[in-house]
Amino acid sequence: MGHAPRDRPLLVVNTGEGKGKSTAAFGMVLRAWARGYRVGVYQFMKSGKWKVGEEKAALALSGIGPGIVWEKMGDGWTWTSRDLEQSADLAREGWEEVRRRIAGETYDLLVLDEFTYPLTFGWVPLGEVVEVLAGRPGFQHVVVTGRAAPQELIDIADLVTEMRKVKHPYDRGIKAQRGIEW
Amino acid sequence: MGHAPRDRPLLVVNTGEGKGKSTAAFGMVLRAWARGYRVGVYQFMKSGKWKVGEEKAALALSGIGPGIVWEKMGDGWTWTSRDLEQSADLAREGWEEVRRRIAGETYDLLVLDEFTYPLTFGWVPLGEVVEVLAGRPGFQHVVVTGRAAPQELIDIADLVTEMRKVKHPYDRGIKAQRGIEW
Repeated sequence: MGHAPRDRPLLVVNTGEGKGKSTAAFGMVLRAWARGYRVGVYQFMKSGKWKVGEEKAALALSGIGPGIVWEKMGDGWTWTSRDLEQSADLAREGWEEVRRRIAGETYDLLVLDEFTYPLTFGWVPLGEVVEVLAGRPGFQHVVVTGRAAPQELIDIADLVTEMRKVKHPYDRGIKAQRGIEW
Repeated sequence: MGHAPRDRPLLVVNTGEGKGKSTAAFGMVLRAWARGYRVGVYQFMKSGKWKVGEEKAALALSGIGPGIVWEKMGDGWTWTSRDLEQSADLAREGWEEVRRRIAGETYDLLVLDEFTYPLTFGWVPLGEVVEVLAGRPGFQHVVVTGRAAPQELIDIADLVTEMRKVKHPYDRGIKAQRGIEW
């Protein structure tokens, strides 16, 4: 893939109550894909109905250039045959895999989508996550998305953006709609 | 493309000093593309070096399903043979085309990327833009991105998100890098 001498691996956090946290992360996936990076996306959400566009695009693009690996907790993860019913167990299983991938330097860009939730719920140990992310070997960019990012994560991050809601159609009784919000 | 009865066309504004404004808009492009919408992206920036990943992805996806039309001011726009040297003239020419497209209902989703700048600089008349966007016919979603969105635009928007910088690698002397920020 090739890095300029000035490049350094970034830990990016997209947080806040507003729209665009995961979507902005996906934009980084596309940039990385366009540059030939190996990209892994891990969605830490039980529900898999969101972000149809991103997933469909990733699937289409996987056949063009380097692949984008896209794993979803909502499907019970693809790598495990264990029958995990509980979200806490699934989240923990997801983190274990991510930890292995980081140790093995599998990806140049790793997206941990909605990962702040299992952290906030205590399903995944924050101290361990901070240690693994801060001490990751080689050249691995990591993006974490989700509301209410823990301060310990913000402390070790390089780039933190808060998406703030200024005005939302919900406020005027307009519901979320296909093709725009998912 | 098909709309649910509850759907209504949205005017979306992504503004603020933080990262992710255009990237989040591009996520909406992908969702719309995945749903079979006709999508037009107009980049109101003289410089065309940004967002290589998004453009490359859009190009790749244009051969799969409905096309994504991607026009850049930095290239002098594709539809005009006029030799426009000045950014103000180019921006005005871009807006004239967008106005024609809105009148003709060419797109289901129209992205006016970095459009707040020509508005702020006075290159494109704000009153006219507000009138055209607020009165657009049919079912056309419009997304406007850029810093410092004018209040008149926010007033007529349905969904406004402010991307706020919490922490940026620039603050620590780390420069922007390929594959992540462009």
